[in-house]
Amino acid sequence: MTIQVAARIEDIEDAAAREARAPSSLVMRFSADEPLRLDAGRELAPFQIAYTTAGELNAAKSNAILVCHALTGDQYVASRNPVTGKPGWWETLVGPGKPINTRKYFVVCSDVVGGCMGSTGPAAIDPATGEPYGITLPVLTIRDMVRAQAMLIDRLGIDTLFAVVGGSMGGMQVLEWAVSYPTRVFAALPIATGARHSSQNIAFHEVGRQAVVADPEWRGGRYILEGSRPHKGLAVARMAAHVTYLSEAALARKFGRNLQDREALGFGFDADFQIESYLRHQGMTFVDRFDANSYLYLTRAMDYFDIAADYGGRLADAFRGSRTRFCLVSFTSDWLFPTGESRAVVHALNAVAASVSFVEVETDRGHDAFLLDEPVMFDAIRGFVSSAARARGL
Amino acid sequence: MTIQVAARIEDIEDAAAREARAPSSLVMRFSADEPLRLDAGRELAPFQIAYTTAGELNAAKSNAILVCHALTGDQYVASRNPVTGKPGWWETLVGPGKPINTRKYFVVCSDVVGGCMGSTGPAAIDPATGEPYGITLPVLTIRDMVRAQAMLIDRLGIDTLFAVVGGSMGGMQVLEWAVSYPTRVFAALPIATGARHSSQNIAFHEVGRQAVVADPEWRGGRYILEGSRPHKGLAVARMAAHVTYLSEAALARKFGRNLQDREALGFGFDADFQIESYLRHQGMTFVDRFDANSYLYLTRAMDYFDIAADYGGRLADAFRGSRTRFCLVSFTSDWLFPTGESRAVVHALNAVAASVSFVEVETDRGHDAFLLDEPVMFDAIRGFVSSAARARGL
Repeated sequence: MTIQVAARIEDIEDAAAREARAPSSLVMRFSADEPLRLDAGRELAPFQIAYTTAGELNAAKSNAILVCHALTGDQYVASRNPVTGKPGWWETLVGPGKPINTRKYFVVCSDVVGGCMGSTGPAAIDPATGEPYGITLPVLTIRDMVRAQAMLIDRLGIDTLFAVVGGSMGGMQVLEWAVSYPTRVFAALPIATGARHSSQNIAFHEVGRQAVVADPEWRGGRYILEGSRPHKGLAVARMAAHVTYLSEAALARKFGRNLQDREALGFGFDADFQIESYLRHQGMTFVDRFDANSYLYLTRAMDYFDIAADYGGRLADAFRGSRTRFCLVSFTSDWLFPTGESRAVVHALNAVAASVSFVEVETDRGHDAFLLDEPVMFDAIRGFVSSAARARGL
Repeated sequence: MTIQVAARIEDIEDAAAREARAPSSLVMRFSADEPLRLDAGRELAPFQIAYTTAGELNAAKSNAILVCHALTGDQYVASRNPVTGKPGWWETLVGPGKPINTRKYFVVCSDVVGGCMGSTGPAAIDPATGEPYGITLPVLTIRDMVRAQAMLIDRLGIDTLFAVVGGSMGGMQVLEWAVSYPTRVFAALPIATGARHSSQNIAFHEVGRQAVVADPEWRGGRYILEGSRPHKGLAVARMAAHVTYLSEAALARKFGRNLQDREALGFGFDADFQIESYLRHQGMTFVDRFDANSYLYLTRAMDYFDIAADYGGRLADAFRGSRTRFCLVSFTSDWLFPTGESRAVVHALNAVAASVSFVEVETDRGHDAFLLDEPVMFDAIRGFVSSAARARGL
């Protein structure tokens, strides 16, 4: 059965299927005896985590920084992505001499469980059936992702992380780390994120999921087994999401109403405007590197995220007694995670007298600003990390 | 051939196909000798306009108000929609004793050309082929819609409209009326609109169009002929658009993270949250009343809208010499047509010393506020209409 599936997978090989079978990065395997306990009330076993590292772990194992990726990110934070051939997604921030200096720190970044770059996700083979999980994989949460990361960090022999840092869904993981493992996180940098997913954000995610499942090639989630791919639906989902990552001002500045390769309107349904070409390109390239079912699982995990829910709705209680140092960053034009979302976390931390600094960066680049060259963000992170390092004796 | 098509249409009868064959409202027919000249450089003939009226035209024919509908609106502005069974879409504003008082004014509202409620659109039969136009209909513009309305108004024997009023795409038509027929519009009320469609708005429309054409049931636009319907794609398009009609604050207030018919998260991909159920419902009900190709045409017309483009980019020049009185209304939480879009029109009108008043309504209800019970908007419109009526001697 397994051989038959593998043959089918190769019929329409894509990054997700390929990485699920043989990840390009380091892989930590957990046997059937070491299950991942899931919030859904089930266990995932065996499972694996694909990850990369940069820099050297010091003898005291006190200089480790965990970087958490966003919805469509991966473990290639500071090294070339072998699937896309592109530079690491946060090389502006992480690397030799960068604000997160890999000459000084040991950086770990893992593909989240549920992802499609080598960690166990819906494209992986379910040992119970010999077929890809598809949507038989239990729905995962941000806490499940963090629990898996903690098992990886255990295996690496690291007790306390010097820092955990991430943006958007990565920032949710940072907050979850600080809440679930308060003594194991010396410093936390949640960026462009919030303590819960808003109604509007759930709405946009639901649009994306419906676009995927509306594609008949989705085949009830069994597309890998059946040799198809819901590329059109996933591309639409990506296009809708991509608009939300930008801002009206940035779109006006970059594209405006500029026409694409033409002098006048075409009076047809081809891409007349540059913004249309740009979006179509974003959709088309995304499907080559991302698994549609992973998209369902990761958006669901974000929607489920609500730290205060386990604390009677009192966010501050989640952080009570925390000795972690926090630095939050938001962006003025981010309308997925507007500054108010970060401010709510800051207020909760203030309420329990936690150590917290907060920077709102003035930019028109929207939510995606956290991935871009934003000097004010870099300065804030560099300063915070340096200060925390002194406090940690690094 | 025509009979064969009609039989197929009845196989999966829907509102768009039914209304294209036999509109429920009044219909004005224009013969092959009276073509509609299109911006695409082609002509549409014969064609027809489905419309409703309310109130009585006075002897001087000076009390006519044209109401222009938005993207998914129709001619049933103040009377029950026979397809949906719902009240007229602007009965809060238009009716006996309402701010647009049908005891005093003669109100005309027509389905736009390109629409699907009885005016000629992509679901109508092309006399040259005996088959539905589908996407062989030339791409239409807001100016084409207005040109068709002007032919209807001519037929009704009305020279000068006392007022033209509309929101969103309807507001675009109002502005186009004022520019194309300045002497035929005594008063103009463009609401929740702008003089051009922004890059972000084009982006969201493109997402919707791609959702439609990604549906294999779209069949290259020939779905009526082939007995199918791209309902899933159109539903996704509607869901994406619907999010943009609301505001984050309104979504938080109405839905928040409330669960749908359950005590706890379901750990599946059913609708856990009320906002998900709501959106799915919006998508599902929309496809029963709207034609997918009309959705392509009308979104395209909005994207193409850019009044200043014909005036060397100088919006003020479009209004130079205008004696029309303008009243613009915007809403603080409308992020499709933020107040700045209305303000740009106001500034252009000020620059040519036109008569203009402007009201920004404080509300959290987003773009859709123009369709809702918004007392400040009603007061503004009532006051402006009364004042214009006095000036007009009504």
